Amino acid sequence: GLIEFCTALHPGVVAEVIEGLSNDDIWNVLSHCDVNSRVQIFTFFDLPKQEDLVTTTDRKRVSALLEEMAPDDRVDLLERLDPKHVDLLLPLIAQAERSDIRKLLSYPENSAGSIMTTEYASLPQEITVEESLRRLRRIAPDRETIYYVYVLDDQRHLHGFVSLRQLILAKPDAIVADIMDHDVISVNVNDDQEDVASMLGRYDLLAIPVVDDQNCLVGIITHDDVIDVIQEEATEDAHRAGAVEPLEDSYLSTPILTITWKRGIWLLFLFTVAQGISVVVDSYKEISEHVEWMGTFIALVIATGGNAGSQSAALVIRTLALGEAGPSDWLRIAAREATMGLMFAAVLSTLGFFPAWGLQGWDAAIIVSATVAIMVMWGSMIGAMLPIVFKKIGMDPALISNPLVAAIVDFTGILVYYEFAQFWLTPVVETLPH
Amino acid sequence: GLIEFCTALHPGVVAEVIEGLSNDDIWNVLSHCDVNSRVQIFTFFDLPKQEDLVTTTDRKRVSALLEEMAPDDRVDLLERLDPKHVDLLLPLIAQAERSDIRKLLSYPENSAGSIMTTEYASLPQEITVEESLRRLRRIAPDRETIYYVYVLDDQRHLHGFVSLRQLILAKPDAIVADIMDHDVISVNVNDDQEDVASMLGRYDLLAIPVVDDQNCLVGIITHDDVIDVIQEEATEDAHRAGAVEPLEDSYLSTPILTITWKRGIWLLFLFTVAQGISVVVDSYKEISEHVEWMGTFIALVIATGGNAGSQSAALVIRTLALGEAGPSDWLRIAAREATMGLMFAAVLSTLGFFPAWGLQGWDAAIIVSATVAIMVMWGSMIGAMLPIVFKKIGMDPALISNPLVAAIVDFTGILVYYEFAQFWLTPVVETLPH
Ligand SMILES: [Mg+2]
Ligand SMILES: [Mg+2]
Ligand SMILES: [Mg+2]
Ligand SMILES: [Mg+2]
Ligand SMILES: [Mg+2]
Ligand SMILES: [Mg+2]
Ligand SMILES: [Mg+2]
Ligand SMILES: [Mg+2]
Ligand SMILES: [Mg+2]
Ligand SMILES: [Mg+2]
Ligand SMILES: [Mg+2]
Ligand SMILES: [Mg+2]
Ligand SMILES: [Mg+2]
Repeated sequence: GLIEFCTALHPGVVAEVIEGLSNDDIWNVLSHCDVNSRVQIFTFFDLPKQEDLVTTTDRKRVSALLEEMAPDDRVDLLERLDPKHVDLLLPLIAQAERSDIRKLLSYPENSAGSIMTTEYASLPQEITVEESLRRLRRIAPDRETIYYVYVLDDQRHLHGFVSLRQLILAKPDAIVADIMDHDVISVNVNDDQEDVASMLGRYDLLAIPVVDDQNCLVGIITHDDVIDVIQEEATEDAHRAGAVEPLEDSYLSTPILTITWKRGIWLLFLFTVAQGISVVVDSYKEISEHVEWMGTFIALVIATGGNAGSQSAALVIRTLALGEAGPSDWLRIAAREATMGLMFAAVLSTLGFFPAWGLQGWDAAIIVSATVAIMVMWGSMIGAMLPIVFKKIGMDPALISNPLVAAIVDFTGILVYYEFAQFWLTPVVETLPH
Repeated sequence: GLIEFCTALHPGVVAEVIEGLSNDDIWNVLSHCDVNSRVQIFTFFDLPKQEDLVTTTDRKRVSALLEEMAPDDRVDLLERLDPKHVDLLLPLIAQAERSDIRKLLSYPENSAGSIMTTEYASLPQEITVEESLRRLRRIAPDRETIYYVYVLDDQRHLHGFVSLRQLILAKPDAIVADIMDHDVISVNVNDDQEDVASMLGRYDLLAIPVVDDQNCLVGIITHDDVIDVIQEEATEDAHRAGAVEPLEDSYLSTPILTITWKRGIWLLFLFTVAQGISVVVDSYKEISEHVEWMGTFIALVIATGGNAGSQSAALVIRTLALGEAGPSDWLRIAAREATMGLMFAAVLSTLGFFPAWGLQGWDAAIIVSATVAIMVMWGSMIGAMLPIVFKKIGMDPALISNPLVAAIVDFTGILVYYEFAQFWLTPVVETLPH
């Protein structure tokens, strides 16, 4: 029956199976499960679904569920709810959980504090391994993990770390202080979640302890939540690369007006830049009137620079995001981009020469290939350097989206194209009748 | 001294500290560490560094190190080496390790088999919890993890799963078969690493078992390696979004000619498309000769459609990569994109109307705003649908890079612009003298 279904399968699988049911039916299934399975299954729904479920049932049921949820998951949900709704729920929740919630809600978004859980396992230094295992057994049921155990003093200062593997392999009468690692890798509660994730990933940890400014342990962040952070940050950067303000929920569960807005502001900005390009082209009316082929190569000269720039931006933004390079590497990166830019310029301006020559003759060939050469080098350079500048001044390098680089390069490309044409063709223009 | 340095700090930290030294000095430091620290520190170097280190020292030292490395890390390194070098190393490695290496090397790139490790912990079904803990203690030193334990029969068929937490909480005389989970989440050895990663992430697992077609356990994939896969796949997609063939190593450690090639092929392809656009524009010579402002708005009409297309592609590619949507959702996605495309078309064609009218009058205003409206809708649609088509036919949706979408939209945009102009202006063109 339902009870076996709830406990025999992984709670994530149960959540997938029942998420298509009506809210009433879901609550009905959940009410047949033991409290532990109920909470776990509920937590495996995505947040829009969780929100939908808790706002369409009575408050007592919700508060009972919230009391049992993991502190980090609970706060993720409460953050999404209408504050008025939260104010009605909090009085129904036990005092201890309520103050834990208030504390966790107080950390700024995207900080270590905002993603940590407070249900970690800890031990004092002076007890034996045997006693440690006894204590772990007792506290295990409501700890996020007992595989990583932190060694604290009475003020909760973080002194050491010991894994369950170390405890199991140690002699039962050994003292914790003697087998623990003293050099604990930890993060500060105010650190950015992205730095936390890259630290856990770099050292292959199962969880990372979070300390306050006094080195007191305040929480831990586990591997599964780090995976979510990494996916979230990659999504954010992918959206930015396409000139979309990052969506918080999935594409299909985000309301269409929200997406329209998050695309619209960028589209409008880029459209304004493109309007500027039209104004610039219009200001070179005199050349265009005499040299009717100028329009023929506009798309070619601007697209190529923009493409080279998008490539550089994609490479540099990603390498900055992974922490493989930083602003201090700017000179090395600039040198690489200059070298590549030169090679691309040589090849593409040669390839651009002949079709232009075939279509429109020598002048076109020279102007087009010179502009292509300049724009490819300029595009590579600007696409690589702007993300570094953004990182340096504390902005998100991923803001340098591909379309933004393209817009900047389009704009400058048009200027270069017409200025060079004006320079090259001046004798021609001057001898032509008005 | 050196020995304390090697063991007191996390091996990942030691690796960072010494990676700037010369290869000789690094080997010197490593030789002072105990074998376990040596192998761990070495594994924390990135692969180009590992490759550099093993190709510049004597083969005996390398084979001794390889024997002790984790099977997955060992194979990652051997895959990068010159096969001749590997053939010289293998005979120096113990028989058991050698056949493990051969087996792991045989799995196709990016498959579960290619990233799994064979050092998992397993137990038979019929023993007690007490006996299980005794056995785990014995095998722990050379297992990747003992926190997840797989329950196998004599033919290594996967029957169940038990966590160390469950074992520690169970009564010592309980039988493994009675406390284990029977419904084990596992992957096939041929599954794609991306699917493996998303499965481990979805169910918040510490490791996922890998089975062959007979449901025999052949390895496990742990959380830390899944994080690497996720980062790798996100990097691949970020590079593709910028029209770069994905780099395998970091930007700064990839030879400049390799990057040049991986950018060059795309740049060349896109350049050819842009050349095609020039040819198209050239073929509308007759209009351009009479309507001198056509060139003024080329950048505007093509960039805007391209930008809308890049946005759609970024959103859809990412949502496909996260498994939030699949090809079967195409109609829902198309409906959303059509709706958004209509809204963008309405706003942008209105905004495009007035500057064009101010600069060049009614005809320009009508042609520009009509083209912008069409291109924004077309760009949104093509940017959203092409990744779905690619996914459906088994190609990587991320191949639909932003510049590629822009190139396609540029090309069609030019056609729409000139065709519409030709249609609208025919009376004008015909009344003008040649
Ligand atoms: Mg949170
Ligand atoms: Mg961030
Ligand atoms: Mg790692
Ligand atoms: Mg959690
Ligand atoms: Mg979670
Ligand atoms: Mg970020
Ligand atoms: Mg463009
Ligand atoms: Mg491999
Ligand atoms: Mg893949
Ligand atoms: Mg997860
Ligand atoms: Mg591994
Ligand atoms: Mg690894
Ligand atoms: Mg992929």
